[in-house]
Amino acid sequence: MPVKRRVTIAQIAEEAGVSVPTVSKVINGRPEVAPETRQRVERLLHKHGYQRRTGQGDGPVGLLDLVFAEIESPWAMELVRGAESAAHEAAASVVISVLHTHAGPGRDWLERIAARRTDGVIIVGSRVSARQQGQLSARSLPFVVVDPEGEPAPGVASVGATNWHGGLAATRHLLDLGHTRIGMISGPADMLCSRARIDGYRAALETAGLPIDPELIRHGDFLVNSGHDHGHALLSLPNPPTAIFAGSDMQAFGVFEAARQRGLRVPQDLSVVGFDDLPLSSSAWPPLTTVRQPLQEMASLAARMVLAMSRGEGTEARRVELATDLVVRDSTATPRV
Amino acid sequence: MPVKRRVTIAQIAEEAGVSVPTVSKVINGRPEVAPETRQRVERLLHKHGYQRRTGQGDGPVGLLDLVFAEIESPWAMELVRGAESAAHEAAASVVISVLHTHAGPGRDWLERIAARRTDGVIIVGSRVSARQQGQLSARSLPFVVVDPEGEPAPGVASVGATNWHGGLAATRHLLDLGHTRIGMISGPADMLCSRARIDGYRAALETAGLPIDPELIRHGDFLVNSGHDHGHALLSLPNPPTAIFAGSDMQAFGVFEAARQRGLRVPQDLSVVGFDDLPLSSSAWPPLTTVRQPLQEMASLAARMVLAMSRGEGTEARRVELATDLVVRDSTATPRV
Repeated sequence: MPVKRRVTIAQIAEEAGVSVPTVSKVINGRPEVAPETRQRVERLLHKHGYQRRTGQGDGPVGLLDLVFAEIESPWAMELVRGAESAAHEAAASVVISVLHTHAGPGRDWLERIAARRTDGVIIVGSRVSARQQGQLSARSLPFVVVDPEGEPAPGVASVGATNWHGGLAATRHLLDLGHTRIGMISGPADMLCSRARIDGYRAALETAGLPIDPELIRHGDFLVNSGHDHGHALLSLPNPPTAIFAGSDMQAFGVFEAARQRGLRVPQDLSVVGFDDLPLSSSAWPPLTTVRQPLQEMASLAARMVLAMSRGEGTEARRVELATDLVVRDSTATPRV
Repeated sequence: MPVKRRVTIAQIAEEAGVSVPTVSKVINGRPEVAPETRQRVERLLHKHGYQRRTGQGDGPVGLLDLVFAEIESPWAMELVRGAESAAHEAAASVVISVLHTHAGPGRDWLERIAARRTDGVIIVGSRVSARQQGQLSARSLPFVVVDPEGEPAPGVASVGATNWHGGLAATRHLLDLGHTRIGMISGPADMLCSRARIDGYRAALETAGLPIDPELIRHGDFLVNSGHDHGHALLSLPNPPTAIFAGSDMQAFGVFEAARQRGLRVPQDLSVVGFDDLPLSSSAWPPLTTVRQPLQEMASLAARMVLAMSRGEGTEARRVELATDLVVRDSTATPRV
């Protein structure tokens, strides 16, 4: 193994114009440092690729942390499978952490990781604040954000899917079938992937010369109940949509349920498109037309990126979007009229 | 922290009537020890709660290993959620390992764990050979088997569900509705949980005074395709069943698909019962009548047991079976005659 010349705390302190104890406080995540100083020091630690001496040896630990805001959906399982399979190839294992709140990764979680070693961190669909990013960098922990909810901070590596294109493709498919009144249920308004899907939907309508009816656009979470409730709301409008594009397959299943409860048949009375292409969606009834998001590949790629970063390779922060594909099955048809 | 008086290798050797090097060989998983001697030594190591000195400190690591044979089914996600939630309460994280073969946990896996520290291991639905058990015990690694496929070896702690009672309840429900020709699709013949479900099915038929038709009993794996293929096979019999009890919800979804492909309506033309009660099963179409297996609770309990064992509490091997419940929804009805 090539011996890499390491930057010392003293060098960082000199370049930052602060004392050695101040750098040490930043590295250990202690609060009593002015925010500006902290940021300056963290930038330098990051720039020089500072490696903390752990005293536990420098080889890989064989652990990769996968951090979720929640793991209620089969969606999460696909990410676990993808990360685990890439980790397995590298003789590593995946550690699962769930935040148990919808906030970004908290101190708890970071401190638990700091107390042991890890080769790196994959953060799923969760905001990473500049402060948290600084803490990860200061601990020399490479990390990649999968399916970033917000715009990733500069210098943060991320893997996503082409959500905008997916929204466009789903909506164009419905327009091609002859639908003109298309409802859209997406995820939370403050998640980037939700917004991108809605913007793709808008773009398809606008380029087809159709108006955007704000009444037809609803925000929920990505789970079944949300599709059920918003499905009912859309279908009870005086002028209901003939097709619904749901922001996730789980939401689409909820729309199926709402349609049945109202005596509507899918696709004869209502077309439904999902987003994700979960393993179950091909055996749903009817088999679901959906936008395939390569979840396993996204997580595998993120795992390989983190592991490469932990070996000091490919440290420049990459932002990758993997392509989505429309998968046409039996839940969409021409409108009845 | 109270200092716990530890048993030494010499004390174990004396009590077992063997030499110190022999005890050492057993601890290090070396092969050149007679099976009987190995067993006697391992029992004593276990009984005295022998702790290997790792030289890495004695506190908890905050890691719990969860080992799967495969994680293709949403079933696995429920176990991850349960284990993670119990680990979280104990400020620990869950490490996921997948064997990538259907064999028991291999050396690879054990060696990867031995190379780092862990507070304990939960092995899901996988055989643990006496040799592997010995290796885990010799490494002072507490472990619990969840949903054991085979009869757990003496001294092995396990958490399962009352599979036999579940099979009985599902079949009695169908008998009560008036079905007399009931097909059964279960998991692999060599998995205990499959056998127990079939035995419950047989017991229900026999106590109702009905014959057991071996043609109606099929073995598959627990996934969708297996339900689909065996569903078709059962429905193409000269005298097909009017109801099918599937060994998993995923298999039941496969049976739904097979029925639809044959133009049969569920439940009017065919009643279907599943096993598991996955989160999706209540929003399946039709909503699935199934035997609820408390998967999250099973994994949480296993995690709490392992963590307690790692603290030296409750070291006696417990075998727990959590109750299953029949959940009646809309996929079962009286037969058409």
